Amino acid sequence: MEKFITAGSLAIMEHRFRAALINSLGGFKSVCLVGTKHEGKSNLAIFSSIVHLGANPPLVGMIVRPDSVERHTYENILANGFYTLNHISSAMVEQAHQTSARYKREESEFECCGLTEEYRNEFFAPFVKESKVKIGLMLRETKAIELNGTILVIGEIQQIHLNESSIGADGFIDLEATDTVTCSGLDCYHSTIRLGRYSYAKPDKWPSRIG
Amino acid sequence: MEKFITAGSLAIMEHRFRAALINSLGGFKSVCLVGTKHEGKSNLAIFSSIVHLGANPPLVGMIVRPDSVERHTYENILANGFYTLNHISSAMVEQAHQTSARYKREESEFECCGLTEEYRNEFFAPFVKESKVKIGLMLRETKAIELNGTILVIGEIQQIHLNESSIGADGFIDLEATDTVTCSGLDCYHSTIRLGRYSYAKPDKWPSRIG
Repeated sequence: MEKFITAGSLAIMEHRFRAALINSLGGFKSVCLVGTKHEGKSNLAIFSSIVHLGANPPLVGMIVRPDSVERHTYENILANGFYTLNHISSAMVEQAHQTSARYKREESEFECCGLTEEYRNEFFAPFVKESKVKIGLMLRETKAIELNGTILVIGEIQQIHLNESSIGADGFIDLEATDTVTCSGLDCYHSTIRLGRYSYAKPDKWPSRIG
Repeated sequence: MEKFITAGSLAIMEHRFRAALINSLGGFKSVCLVGTKHEGKSNLAIFSSIVHLGANPPLVGMIVRPDSVERHTYENILANGFYTLNHISSAMVEQAHQTSARYKREESEFECCGLTEEYRNEFFAPFVKESKVKIGLMLRETKAIELNGTILVIGEIQQIHLNESSIGADGFIDLEATDTVTCSGLDCYHSTIRLGRYSYAKPDKWPSRIG
């Protein structure tokens, strides 16, 4: 049976039900562990609101809710300007999910959740040793979204670490080779199966499989 | 072998290689067909830069590149204020990918790509009949990202259409039941396998499977 949900019924919906519904409605999400550091204390937090902004310059966006457990991450990024994004592989899902618990400022989620802090190539912020794709970013800009009090944090990619064999001849990264997971809603994780890569679309030609 | 890519090597990388690399680096993406209309002409375009902004009010963000094939979508949203997001199921992947071809203003991607325009509950913008999850949005705000000339388009959810059986008792939508696909990079589509849903994380308790 088809369900039709209006703006009016969303407005009066029980708030946890609405949060679960709207969080899963947008489809599968990019999910990463964000590593930061401030005054010698490391922090690690899971974020599922990561969005590709552009390749040149290489920019990544991330939505932050500063009134939530995410505030430590945000404060550390503002204070020091550097952070890391680390892909989550299927063996790390429980540890990654656990980083969303409300740990105290003085506790490091690395230690509490069983993940290993790693420093690479003199980058200020910690990477996750267990991650198979690691990205170091420099803060470029923040944009306040006044409509709901969230913030778009924009970072420029400074360094990338991943297995060479997962990068194709055309630059495409095989995210199944890196065992990267995706998520839906607030708490569900998924691995993927490739349906296919398709040729660059042109008006006079139907797309064909290229991988 | 581990590959280490620096900002310097990204800056001098062949531009198509860099686009493929950076587009796939952020992980799996939410991908939807965006339906718009202007002066009686419908338009349909695939977008993979959709990001959940918040549940109350129910806001969805989308990054638009106005110097690309996406400009028709953007112009229509600005002109009329309403648009739709339609999930892509595995049987629609080729048609959905084909909407990224540079069709002329007077051509409708619905017709050219073999998808069916559908109007529901007096909503101005067209839905995709074949989609199993359909969302009607009203434009709330645009935010220019001057760093690379893109725009964050923010919409508020006005209506949702989906099968009632895919919504769980707690509001979570089973995106495998709706056959929703995810994408990576510029041209790769994937179906998913659930690894698990995990309990709300608390500092003193390890997460357990809830689904």
